[in-house]
Amino acid sequence: MTTRIVELRRGILKKNDELAAGLRQRFTSAGVLVLNLVSSPGTGKTAFLELTLRALRERGAHAAALVGDLETDNDARRLAASGAPVRQINTHGICHLDAEMVSKHLDGWEGVSLVGLDYLFIENVGNLVCPSSYDLGERIRVALLSVTEGEDKPLKYPGLFNSSDAAVITKIDLAVPCGFDRELALKNINEIRPGIRVFETSAKTGAGMDEWLAYLLEQAQPS
Amino acid sequence: MTTRIVELRRGILKKNDELAAGLRQRFTSAGVLVLNLVSSPGTGKTAFLELTLRALRERGAHAAALVGDLETDNDARRLAASGAPVRQINTHGICHLDAEMVSKHLDGWEGVSLVGLDYLFIENVGNLVCPSSYDLGERIRVALLSVTEGEDKPLKYPGLFNSSDAAVITKIDLAVPCGFDRELALKNINEIRPGIRVFETSAKTGAGMDEWLAYLLEQAQPS
Repeated sequence: MTTRIVELRRGILKKNDELAAGLRQRFTSAGVLVLNLVSSPGTGKTAFLELTLRALRERGAHAAALVGDLETDNDARRLAASGAPVRQINTHGICHLDAEMVSKHLDGWEGVSLVGLDYLFIENVGNLVCPSSYDLGERIRVALLSVTEGEDKPLKYPGLFNSSDAAVITKIDLAVPCGFDRELALKNINEIRPGIRVFETSAKTGAGMDEWLAYLLEQAQPS
Repeated sequence: MTTRIVELRRGILKKNDELAAGLRQRFTSAGVLVLNLVSSPGTGKTAFLELTLRALRERGAHAAALVGDLETDNDARRLAASGAPVRQINTHGICHLDAEMVSKHLDGWEGVSLVGLDYLFIENVGNLVCPSSYDLGERIRVALLSVTEGEDKPLKYPGLFNSSDAAVITKIDLAVPCGFDRELALKNINEIRPGIRVFETSAKTGAGMDEWLAYLLEQAQPS
């Protein structure tokens, strides 16, 4: 049975890669910068993204978000408070987003056209394993890690960190009560993905957000 | 392709269920209480389990642990400090433990015989989705949730919470800095799994551990 699973998995990922390549071309032609946010459940992706959406809006940029969860539209409702267009993807038991789900939810998204957007954020299902195998056509994959989770997560989940373009450490306001070892976390991230850009942030205090926004603005420049 | 996936998945889960049923019979005959600990990465399963293993040892009980991770043997090394026999299962990319992995790692576990054990803890791979579909032959499935993760996790991951026999809230020492809404978390847990036993714990302060240990001792009594 193992061989059949490996073969089927290869087929699924190949089909996903083809769809993702089509999406990537579509995003590039439309001039929209697409980011795929991946982390454990509870890392604070939604709070971080809400702050990001608000800040981009204040700077006159047009951003939208697709948000994946097994169930509930809690996150879409939270994010919509930022004023940005947000659409929930409920996967109903599937542990990751795939390119087909993204494609389907782009179609018929009322009031949203890719050409009118500067940024599209895709908040993946909270999971450090499965989403790392599924390309969504993004240009930037962001791995998020909170100070409450332990410094060894990059070593334990190398697949995600190794395939990411940026890493965001969240909840740094809790670093002291959690006894977070910053040097060790940075060392572990760099061991898996040497030279990756790392942002140290707090959605509560706003720490690190200026640097993150400068990165977003810089990445959105046509190369 | 969807139909093929559904069929194959059904086949895999059926095979797993059969293996798990065999394991369950083996555990029952040996008189060992088996618990499967499931949570998000970074919830603090290992710290909680280390404290549990130490406390059981002090009470003269014999406990051992199998611990699942994609990579590294960090957790096995941490847990071994408790003096209990511990064996690491590295899944190398697989996002959950299955009954076959458990069975294989019970075989040839030097110095450990199921008959000599009172408790066997299985620390699953950090993931709130996939492990919930895989029965490991456990008698008690424990869903863990830290105060840092957000009170809505039971609603977002109903599959796990609905299939669990007990819920453990971890890191309650961080409840105040995190602004944890205890009533809401308990309400959400009970909405998914009415009447489930809930333990509110901290591996840092030891809070809630007496109640958890009393539960373990009570559950180990032959019915």
